[in-house]
Formats: sequence, C-alpha cells, structure tokens
Amino acid sequence: MEVLGHAVLSQFPIEFVQKTYPFVESRERAEEIRAQIDALFDSTGERPIVFHSIVSEEIKHIILASRGFCHDVIESLITPLSEELDMTPQATLHRTHGLTHQNLARYDARIAAVEYALAHDDGLSMRQLDEAQVILLGVSRCGKTPASLYLAMQFGLRVANYPFIADDMASLDLPPGLQPYRQRLFGLTISPERLSRIRNERRSGSSYASLRQCRLELGEVEQLFQRYRIPWLDTTNYSVEEIATRLIDMMGIDRRIF
Amino acid sequence: MEVLGHAVLSQFPIEFVQKTYPFVESRERAEEIRAQIDALFDSTGERPIVFHSIVSEEIKHIILASRGFCHDVIESLITPLSEELDMTPQATLHRTHGLTHQNLARYDARIAAVEYALAHDDGLSMRQLDEAQVILLGVSRCGKTPASLYLAMQFGLRVANYPFIADDMASLDLPPGLQPYRQRLFGLTISPERLSRIRNERRSGSSYASLRQCRLELGEVEQLFQRYRIPWLDTTNYSVEEIATRLIDMMGIDRRIF
Repeated sequence: MEVLGHAVLSQFPIEFVQKTYPFVESRERAEEIRAQIDALFDSTGERPIVFHSIVSEEIKHIILASRGFCHDVIESLITPLSEELDMTPQATLHRTHGLTHQNLARYDARIAAVEYALAHDDGLSMRQLDEAQVILLGVSRCGKTPASLYLAMQFGLRVANYPFIADDMASLDLPPGLQPYRQRLFGLTISPERLSRIRNERRSGSSYASLRQCRLELGEVEQLFQRYRIPWLDTTNYSVEEIATRLIDMMGIDRRIF
Repeated sequence: MEVLGHAVLSQFPIEFVQKTYPFVESRERAEEIRAQIDALFDSTGERPIVFHSIVSEEIKHIILASRGFCHDVIESLITPLSEELDMTPQATLHRTHGLTHQNLARYDARIAAVEYALAHDDGLSMRQLDEAQVILLGVSRCGKTPASLYLAMQFGLRVANYPFIADDMASLDLPPGLQPYRQRLFGLTISPERLSRIRNERRSGSSYASLRQCRLELGEVEQLFQRYRIPWLDTTNYSVEEIATRLIDMMGIDRRIF
C-alpha cells in the first residue's frame, strides 16, 4: 500500500506528506484515525487523500465518515474484475501477511531460509550446499549478503554465497566444492568505481579498496563467469529488490511468495 | 503488485494460476509476454486477467493489444485522484526500487543497517549500541534475528538484539550494558507451545526445548518487561512484516521506506 501510494502520488507535481496506519482493526483505532484526518482538514483547509484497503464494513464505515478523500484500493481492482469474471466477490477478511494455520508452514520455511542464508554467508559453510537453491558468487563487498537475505526473507529461497578473495586471483578457478552445483550458481558483479567506494568505507586507503585492485578482481571474476557459463548480473544500479526479481527470472525459479 | 494481485484474486471463489513478469522494459520482452497471454487464451478459451503498472506508452500499447483482460493498477488510482486534486498527472517513468542518484544514499543506509543488524545479532557485540535505534530483547528462538533483519532491510533501521538465556533466569535483570538505552528497548514474546516446537526442531527432546523450560523463561522475561515498562509484542501469530509495522507504530519511529 505504502509503495503503491508513493508511486501514484509521485505522478503529481506537488509534495505530499505521507503517513501510514497499518493494522487498523478496532473501532477505537479507526475513530482515532478519523479524528486525525479531520484535524488535518481543519488545520490545512485541504481534504487529506486517504488510500485504504479496509475489509471490515464496520471499520470502513468509520473512515469513510471522515472529511478525507477516501479511495478503496482493493475495491477499485475488484469491481472491473467482477464484471470480467461475471462473479460476485466474497467478503473475506483477507490479511496478506497474517499468520494463519494455512500459511504457517510457508512462513516457517521463509524463516528457515533466513537461517540457512546466515549459516552459509560468505563461504562460512560448504556443508549442506546440496540444500541450496541458489549459490551467489562474487568478489568481497559486491552485495552478496543483502541479496541472499532478501531472497530468503521475501521468497523463502535457500541461498548460499561464496566470495572470491584477493588470494584467489592469481589462478582463479571454480572451487571443487562448487563444481557439483553448477546449475545453481549465479554471479554478481559491480562497477569498479562503486566497489572501490564501498570498500573504502570499510578500509579507507587500503590496497584492498584501491580502484586498481577492484578492477583486477572484477575482471578475473567476470572471465570466470563467462568460462563456466554462469549467469551473472551487474548490480551497480540495482537494489536488492531488483537483483532478486531479475535473478529469479534469469534462473527460471518458481516464486514462492505469499 | 504481486501481493496486491493476490489479495484481489483471493476475493473470488476460484483458483487462479498466477504468474509475475517484473521489469518489462523492452519491446522484445513485451512481445514475448503478449504471445504468452495469447497462447494462454488459445489453450484455455478464457481471457487471462492482466494486472499491470506499465508507464511506457510503447510497452503498454503492446500488452493492451493482447487478448487478455488488462487492468492498469496505477491508472485506476490516478484517475480519481486527478479529479480530486484538479490536476493532470505527469507521465514520468517512475521506478519504485531502481537506484538513482537521489536514492542511492538512502539505499546505502539500508544496506549499512543490514550489516549493523548482522554485527549486533544475538548479543554478539555490545559495542556501538548507542548507534542502535531499536534493541530487541527476548528468549532464544523467539524471532529476534528475522525481525532485526527485516527492519533493517525494509526500513533502514539500525536494530541490535539481545538474548536472555537459561542461565539468566535465576535472577533475571536488565544487563548494565542496556541500562543507558532503555528508551530503545523492545521486547518480543511468543507462546510457550510455539517456542517449544521451534526449539525442538533445533534440539529435539532437549530440556532447552521442553514446554516447562519455555514457560519458565517466557514468564520471567515478561515480568522483566513489565518491571522496566519495556513495550513488547506477542509474536505468536505475527509475521516479520506485522512485527515490524507494529513495532514502528508502538515506538513512534519515523518510517524511512522509499
């Protein structure tokens, strides 16, 4: 809701002050929020814009009685779909992220995937690699850890990651421990300039952080990816969200989001 | 989009097969997807439902030419807002998660927060606690680590976490190292039954995993939370998404999402 609201508001040439109220589930909470909307109207003279996805009729009634401009996001999608399907929607109290008996097992799998990513971060453990669905490869500080954790947290994927370090560079090759899992390997690269900036934050002025060393390591590793036909992504301009969706797309993995 | 689509489809009493195509940015990719939509129509005889948020007119034109039922999610929110504001929206190529010069600093802060959470996981380091915005407290395996990582990844919050262990229970008190940061403490609890199940997965049949031990630890820790007036949340039925938004709400933290 927050991200969608932001995308919509950014289409208009004015600045909005955004506020999010998650989990409005009681009459009391709804009344508080209605009072805040009305107070905003009174102090600014402008109708506050209210995007909501409230399912409870009782709660919705309270918010709709405010002096804000209220727009039901779910409803605006359901109505045209209902016509297309020629079907009446069911008023279920759908909560996307709530833990119910049905989705508890999937949620536990996501949490187990986060634990797997932590245990297999930065080449920490080469054991149980057969359980990995993805093994990320790349030089130090190219973004393997956040990408692994995001893939685990969001999609329940078991992701290990393995770093190539400076000592590997003289005769860079795929470690024997990774050979059996070549179908699961995925490379991350980054521009030498950005890598050098990131490394300088950790070890300022070191040869490890120098542009020369970054160029050398990235060049060697890209050659390795090409030699072994490992799919890879230049992450310089990508966030973890984009890295994750592109990786899933490029590797043809089934999404397990809920 | 994926979560929203799921919420909308779940209101109808039929099963949908869902497929997501992120980052459709080239004509070629759009033509591929149009061909897939048309192939689905041909093989099933049913119009595929297409929710999209395409901004490029060229790409949109290709998808709209498919035989699917296409619904523009952003548009359906912009139109009523445009009327309310009496303003014409600007057709900007808005990418929510792309890294641009403007949001790079905030993105780097999120990644730094993930690194902070990893360095301060499970009481690993009591140093630099003054940099923590939140310090999570709770018994072993109550969900501190995933919650810390989620808060860092999603909101750029610096979250440390500190475990109370069995040895602490005889005379449980707040460690002196945490005393200066009482305003930043937040407790997590969980039902003894769920905790026992989770612990049994790690150390099956141990006294650590026994319902008796879980009850004892949780009872002591809840008393501590009450004694020091530390806000706390029972996470038994909550996912990390819900824990994070409720914590932010309860602690009155500014959301730094983008």
